[in-house]
Amino acid sequence: MEFPSKLLERAVAEMSQLPGIGKRTALRLVLHLLKQPPERTVYLSEALSDMRDKLRYCSECHNISDNEICEICADGRRDRSLICVVEDIRDVMAIENTGQYRGLYHVLGGKISPIDGIGPSQLTISALVERVKNGTVMELIFALSPTMEGDTTNFYIYRQLGDTGISTSAIARGISVGDELEYADEVTLGRSILQRVPFENSLRGN
Amino acid sequence: MEFPSKLLERAVAEMSQLPGIGKRTALRLVLHLLKQPPERTVYLSEALSDMRDKLRYCSECHNISDNEICEICADGRRDRSLICVVEDIRDVMAIENTGQYRGLYHVLGGKISPIDGIGPSQLTISALVERVKNGTVMELIFALSPTMEGDTTNFYIYRQLGDTGISTSAIARGISVGDELEYADEVTLGRSILQRVPFENSLRGN
Repeated sequence: MEFPSKLLERAVAEMSQLPGIGKRTALRLVLHLLKQPPERTVYLSEALSDMRDKLRYCSECHNISDNEICEICADGRRDRSLICVVEDIRDVMAIENTGQYRGLYHVLGGKISPIDGIGPSQLTISALVERVKNGTVMELIFALSPTMEGDTTNFYIYRQLGDTGISTSAIARGISVGDELEYADEVTLGRSILQRVPFENSLRGN
Repeated sequence: MEFPSKLLERAVAEMSQLPGIGKRTALRLVLHLLKQPPERTVYLSEALSDMRDKLRYCSECHNISDNEICEICADGRRDRSLICVVEDIRDVMAIENTGQYRGLYHVLGGKISPIDGIGPSQLTISALVERVKNGTVMELIFALSPTMEGDTTNFYIYRQLGDTGISTSAIARGISVGDELEYADEVTLGRSILQRVPFENSLRGN
């Protein structure tokens, strides 16, 4: 692509570093900004650099936070005996949206994935183990994606917990609410039969 | 969506103002920036605000430019008797990429579209008419998209030119090179027969 301006070229180059944004999309976005009032661009670039400069991670759960301790960890009404282990902050947001969970979280920052060069030391696993050993935690809930990396990470953490005597659980995997049974994949359907729950329990969350 | 941080929420809100970027995509992009070294965010926000502050429009053709006059208008080797009328700078880039055109351009900044509230006064049409009246232009080439708005804009400009005596042309519309005839739409195929060209001419650009 030949650009009529170095300034435009640089903006497109930086924009297209973002995941899923190619050169053409970047050009479209940048030209859109040029058609908008200048404040729009000022707001966008300030919001991005402010976020990058000032945003912190909660020193307890490693969730994104504006303060030393995030709102969830600082909330006295939450159940401090429960920790839900998740991969990233989007999972925290998703679980919070359900309104079904009142415990705390622990954000790992990823999954163990040797292919992507991510080992246990890049994640917040040792901080989690410390939290379990020093704290009032009774149960750890694994809520990672049901992939090979997720399962590996769960198992690694499970092993690290050793003889702490904490109870562990994993979120239920089964047929999604509203799904037609005939379209479910065999693995999910098979597990949902093996891991069936008492009928009265199956009504929870309705 | 409930955000754990106001800084994050603001960044996502600004990002999702861009066309085609929803809240979820914006969150994904912003979290990507957080995982990258801080310089990446600095480079991106500086590139955007620099572009918005310093970028100019060529005072002749209204193409994007780093200077008062763009590189194309300033290039003495270009044919000053030809002006190709286009909608926006992406069209200039596309035509330049072909390497088949050595004249000048005029960037309208859009098409006449009453539905979107865009009338002739929001475009650079009067500047184009001035350019034709005062200049050395012999031929105007309409290269707008073959849509109703494009055709309306062409016709409006054609009428504005009045008795300037300038010759006008439109880019050829027909079957794309490499396309199978049987898959072409009827309007395009019909026009390509009515507007057929002498065989020797059809070899140009090969």
